[in-house]
Amino acid sequence: MLNFDFQNSTRIVFGRDTQNAVGELLKPYAKKILLHYGGSSIKKSGLYDTVAASLNANDIEFVELGGVVPNPRLSLVHEGIRLCKAENVELILAVGGGSVIDSAKAIAAGMYYDGDVWDLFETGRSTDGALPVATVLTIPAAGSESSMNTVITNEAIQKKLGYGNVHLRPCFSIVNPELFFTLPKNQIANGVADMISHIFERYFTNTTETDLTDGLCEATLRTIMKNALLVVKNPRDYDAWCQVGFGGTVAHNDLLGMGREQDWGCHGMEHELSAIYDVAHGAGLAVVTPAWMKYVYKSNINIFVQFAVNVMGVSGSFRNPDAIVMEGIERLSEFFKKMGLPSTLGQLGIDESNLELMAKKATREAYGKEYPIGGLKKLYWQDVLEIYRLAR
Amino acid sequence: MLNFDFQNSTRIVFGRDTQNAVGELLKPYAKKILLHYGGSSIKKSGLYDTVAASLNANDIEFVELGGVVPNPRLSLVHEGIRLCKAENVELILAVGGGSVIDSAKAIAAGMYYDGDVWDLFETGRSTDGALPVATVLTIPAAGSESSMNTVITNEAIQKKLGYGNVHLRPCFSIVNPELFFTLPKNQIANGVADMISHIFERYFTNTTETDLTDGLCEATLRTIMKNALLVVKNPRDYDAWCQVGFGGTVAHNDLLGMGREQDWGCHGMEHELSAIYDVAHGAGLAVVTPAWMKYVYKSNINIFVQFAVNVMGVSGSFRNPDAIVMEGIERLSEFFKKMGLPSTLGQLGIDESNLELMAKKATREAYGKEYPIGGLKKLYWQDVLEIYRLAR
Repeated sequence: MLNFDFQNSTRIVFGRDTQNAVGELLKPYAKKILLHYGGSSIKKSGLYDTVAASLNANDIEFVELGGVVPNPRLSLVHEGIRLCKAENVELILAVGGGSVIDSAKAIAAGMYYDGDVWDLFETGRSTDGALPVATVLTIPAAGSESSMNTVITNEAIQKKLGYGNVHLRPCFSIVNPELFFTLPKNQIANGVADMISHIFERYFTNTTETDLTDGLCEATLRTIMKNALLVVKNPRDYDAWCQVGFGGTVAHNDLLGMGREQDWGCHGMEHELSAIYDVAHGAGLAVVTPAWMKYVYKSNINIFVQFAVNVMGVSGSFRNPDAIVMEGIERLSEFFKKMGLPSTLGQLGIDESNLELMAKKATREAYGKEYPIGGLKKLYWQDVLEIYRLAR
Repeated sequence: MLNFDFQNSTRIVFGRDTQNAVGELLKPYAKKILLHYGGSSIKKSGLYDTVAASLNANDIEFVELGGVVPNPRLSLVHEGIRLCKAENVELILAVGGGSVIDSAKAIAAGMYYDGDVWDLFETGRSTDGALPVATVLTIPAAGSESSMNTVITNEAIQKKLGYGNVHLRPCFSIVNPELFFTLPKNQIANGVADMISHIFERYFTNTTETDLTDGLCEATLRTIMKNALLVVKNPRDYDAWCQVGFGGTVAHNDLLGMGREQDWGCHGMEHELSAIYDVAHGAGLAVVTPAWMKYVYKSNINIFVQFAVNVMGVSGSFRNPDAIVMEGIERLSEFFKKMGLPSTLGQLGIDESNLELMAKKATREAYGKEYPIGGLKKLYWQDVLEIYRLAR
């Protein structure tokens, strides 16, 4: 196990009716906030009215900015920064899923940076603060409700980049599984693929002596997979949603990755799909991940055997570990299919034409100096291209 | 699953040589601190010198107060409060195990309370702050390094009480498993019994729909048990210590108990043993816990079957669940024995004479109005007495 430094200060207020407390929870932080959200769904569902009533009841003034889309755009982030500055906003309340929260975080970071906030994404440089962010989660998926990360798409240059900064961890997040009841099934499935991938990126590592975090990863994976099939069948299953919703937070609150080298290759490869084709992140991950597994497993077969046995429930003869691994990958693919997720690039509408370009963008070869991605196995652009081809 | 509100802001700095960073980590918090510790072991081991050097290198002034003993005493807490007030101390650095950390927390709370700090333990009333506490952990056991709890013994009246307050969560804790290499085996075993019990108190619950936290509890229990046998055999096994040390923190950082009714009956019953007989907390828990299991399991046999199968690895016919449960309890007792822990009150030097008094103190019957303890099954003093008798 590696040395580590862990701190996650986000308060998670979880369960039925918790959104009613948002104004009270905000009171210690701000008198004026930006209410940031996506489309009209929070107005249709009544959540907007609930939040507004709670803000009013607690004398919290608010300005609002809607319009966040999946793969959230830099242009709206710029607009948010202008608005927050003009209105002297003290906190950003993100009411939505990962895209809304990520957009809020980018605005929050931009408030503490004099240049174009996109510089931060390009350089990874830190800021000495950020506007506080709080969230009311409506889509469990990205884990952004307790992470310090944000992913933004600069639509002008078709580039999707992540950025992390300790100041971007939300001060609190409200997670009420009842708010997930009206999610369309494809959005549920995409979210589940994302949270599973957050665990995979930590789980598949060459670091050894990781009993505890291996076990925590496996328990969280098994729980999410079991209950995801229940909620996709019946999106009003509160108890199953509790497991999936809490699981999505645990998947990405950093604890599961402590003391382990991490991978993040699949996320890197998927971001290129989303940047050009604007596919849903989770759908892209469901396509890329099994292909990645097939391509890399031989470089550390033991952890893939462990995955097959401890997570996917494969049993049988260990004399042929390759067969155990392939059965595990097969069962994962079956799970994704049962969730209604795509399994090929073709199903995402992605043909051959940009595979090489995307591979070179993923490793930054396209921008000059190449940086291989991945931890379990270093992937150069030729490797990424092979994986994309396996995923056709 | 129940609604929950989770926040654990403690930073865990984990791994080899991390104690060298203590001064640097303290710098944002304080210019003058109290260095609080137990006996001479930190001087013999060189840890005292390392810490002092790091404080000096970062221009942090310190006064010191040693002498904390297991089942830490109220009298020393009083002395610490006087010292901190006289010296205008800004933070308390606890270098030691759970007793030292708990003593530091009690001093920290006392600094924000005008009356006798013991009132807080008797009434559970909150304070509007506390002096910050940081820790360098030398004994993994109590989980106090990231909890908001402290347990103090008022030796004058033989009363041991716990107290929790959100302000008492350490700002950071340094956990370096190398510092555990010189622990005597009985102290290792006591610590492991304590961390296991912290999970049990959360795991054994009547709350249902708890897949995720069940799985996290089980993974942590399996990891601690497996690796505890390795460290008790070879206390210099760094890799195994990593699992046990990190496991002890996870066991008590609150995450594993979220959304579940909790029990804490065994802790309550053990505190009475320690209050009168000054036995080690972990040793007392190892004696009380299997007896408690035998007494209560029929009131929720399913979770005990799950424990036997998922944690203790019992397999076989499920037609006789009682046999599955008893085999699970038997394996737990065997584990405690392998760790060198006692299994009867007699081995702790406790005879019949005070059993009834202790039972009545545990439920506060002895102080007037009775409050039954436990969550899975409510225990009145007669129940507690039966459990003590089963543990003879």
